[in-house]
Amino acid sequence: MSTRAFAARASAGAPTILDETESHYLRRVRRLADGARVELITDDGELWSATLAGGDARRSELQVHAPIPVAAPARELVLLLGLPEPTATLELLPGIVELGVAAVVWVRCARSQTSPPGEARVQRVVRAAQRQCGRPRPPAFLGPLALADALATRTDLRGFFAWEARRGAADDPLPAAAGARLCVGPEGGFTEAEAHALTRAEFTALSLGPYTLRTGTAALVGLARLLFAP
Amino acid sequence: MSTRAFAARASAGAPTILDETESHYLRRVRRLADGARVELITDDGELWSATLAGGDARRSELQVHAPIPVAAPARELVLLLGLPEPTATLELLPGIVELGVAAVVWVRCARSQTSPPGEARVQRVVRAAQRQCGRPRPPAFLGPLALADALATRTDLRGFFAWEARRGAADDPLPAAAGARLCVGPEGGFTEAEAHALTRAEFTALSLGPYTLRTGTAALVGLARLLFAP
Repeated sequence: MSTRAFAARASAGAPTILDETESHYLRRVRRLADGARVELITDDGELWSATLAGGDARRSELQVHAPIPVAAPARELVLLLGLPEPTATLELLPGIVELGVAAVVWVRCARSQTSPPGEARVQRVVRAAQRQCGRPRPPAFLGPLALADALATRTDLRGFFAWEARRGAADDPLPAAAGARLCVGPEGGFTEAEAHALTRAEFTALSLGPYTLRTGTAALVGLARLLFAP
Repeated sequence: MSTRAFAARASAGAPTILDETESHYLRRVRRLADGARVELITDDGELWSATLAGGDARRSELQVHAPIPVAAPARELVLLLGLPEPTATLELLPGIVELGVAAVVWVRCARSQTSPPGEARVQRVVRAAQRQCGRPRPPAFLGPLALADALATRTDLRGFFAWEARRGAADDPLPAAAGARLCVGPEGGFTEAEAHALTRAEFTALSLGPYTLRTGTAALVGLARLLFAP
């Protein structure tokens, strides 16, 4: 498994100084010594090959080599997420990062009982997932928005929503296009009025099998279904 | 959301006595009173409509009405799971139940560092997921088996495996058939030798996008991909 660190920027052949968090991670958590190969993720969302080259657990230096090309996911996916409870949201975030979801829009739904997790917490979880999965550019986060406003964002992407009443239904038409939006409700799902609003906004109800999925499973399974549709 | 309880058996028009766990769940956790509608899951994997009809938090009685038809998942899926660490496994189990996976085979891989979670713990998590998602028949659990023995089970189903070296690769051929097996390695993935053994056993390497997925994400996303392939 590759070891990855974060820095503001990098350029080929130049050294980069890591901050204390990153130096500590490489030296203490991963126990790397000088000469170890590392991948560097920059604030611009680039991935670079590098070598640990001096310093200590408070301030380490990397020798940067060359940019590493990273393939994009097969489709651009935007997740409109109806504010599940924060624990469920934080458990879901790594999968969202790993799948390559481009943006998450927090949506205030009728059955939402909470706010999104705080920005700092979200960023910590997202960074840990980026480190693990090698995705250099984090998802964008928008909102929280009212459902109507959320449905009016990225209308260039065809919309789908996880709708429990569709469970067990036969096959759905899937996006042939380069991208898709998926709207997933909070615990308890969408109200009838919300399902109508989604349908009016030309979102297609998506069947995710015969059973009632939790929000996190519905999001991951729905995203996978849209990502890998032929 | 439907409230669900477990009992050994049920028959139409007859009363059923619930044990203390189930009586406590309906009366104390869900705070139901006599007359409340309940769905009953039996040991035979059937789902019945019923009404709470007397008793208390230690011994409640249900009046059973009629069997509820439950659609089967679109495909029969068997997951060969390379013993991730127990916390990751227990987090993954509800999604496996919700997706309708028919059987889980625990597989001892070169990089497996652990045993499967204990049977009682697995059953508790599976039951909670069945209660929540409405799936009346739990998955079967087999093993732990050596990889070679695991690959020799259910050879009637076409095999796939999540193989990190395939990440970012173009589209894979997917099962047109009525079922599929998915093999997912432990943290750290399969060794080269294991990947060869999988290939020799006619398992197809499956790409799950450009990034490195954790075991739990790889399992759910791979299962979703196979379940919903056209």
